[in-house]
Amino acid sequence: MVKVLLSILLVLVVMISIMGKTQKAAVKKERRVPQTLSKGWGDQLIWAQTYEEALFWARSKNKPLMVIFHLDDCPHSQALKKAFAEDEKIQKLADENFVLLNLVHETTDKHLSPDGFYVPRIVFVDPSMVVRADITGRYSNRKYAYEPSDIKLLLSNMERAIKLVKTEL
Amino acid sequence: MVKVLLSILLVLVVMISIMGKTQKAAVKKERRVPQTLSKGWGDQLIWAQTYEEALFWARSKNKPLMVIFHLDDCPHSQALKKAFAEDEKIQKLADENFVLLNLVHETTDKHLSPDGFYVPRIVFVDPSMVVRADITGRYSNRKYAYEPSDIKLLLSNMERAIKLVKTEL
Repeated sequence: MVKVLLSILLVLVVMISIMGKTQKAAVKKERRVPQTLSKGWGDQLIWAQTYEEALFWARSKNKPLMVIFHLDDCPHSQALKKAFAEDEKIQKLADENFVLLNLVHETTDKHLSPDGFYVPRIVFVDPSMVVRADITGRYSNRKYAYEPSDIKLLLSNMERAIKLVKTEL
Repeated sequence: MVKVLLSILLVLVVMISIMGKTQKAAVKKERRVPQTLSKGWGDQLIWAQTYEEALFWARSKNKPLMVIFHLDDCPHSQALKKAFAEDEKIQKLADENFVLLNLVHETTDKHLSPDGFYVPRIVFVDPSMVVRADITGRYSNRKYAYEPSDIKLLLSNMERAIKLVKTEL
């Protein structure tokens, strides 16, 4: 009899402990993950928060600015983001030679949308604050769009943006 | 002899393993902590990235917008941030009733600096996109500044910003 009671007690204790753990997990799940400025485009990179801040850094560091327009619920943006974040050469070049800004919202500066407001869209801006509308991707209808397969073109466009700053000094 | 050799081997293995760990630690230390949008003002809150985005959310959610201007290397900003992040009532009210934006850089909208560009500075904006220059702190020379000791005044100003939206509907 005592044995039966003891085993019931044991089962209860185990159940309570399991329930406690489940509840803890549920509470933890409710806590939000802090939003990052990188939004997945490279957690190790340093990102400007706003266009004004990015322009300020571009001028003071004399580095070209790379503005990435994207959206969380756009599969093309997500695919390009993955390719961008996983490409070591791009991440290194971005880290060392660019001022970086990624935005899920348009700015009030229409120069950043030379051919419309689509995403994903990557626009380079010279430290002299001139938008480099001449650095384009592969698609004539959306000049500043890139697909994950265009990642090498993006890399060479980044190299071009750096070279243009240096030669124009 | 074999014993001596074995013990030397053991010492070598231990040394290599320790060296490996030290190197790993050094590499890890170099990795940057991802930047958060909250910048310490409340990791659990949802922050807009730019003023444009914040205005969009304020209008679409019909909630007042709270813009916090601050600087990382300003001790007054740091002190207010600590008080703001640790005050549960403020965090709850901010989470439930406000669109939130914190900026370390000025915007191009002069309405957000009714009496100058100092930090810390907290400006409320109505969902109708009107800056509430009438919601001020305790100091006549810097109307939108708050000290950590003014946290209750800030809370009542937040409540006022909510009430003004509702009564003006």
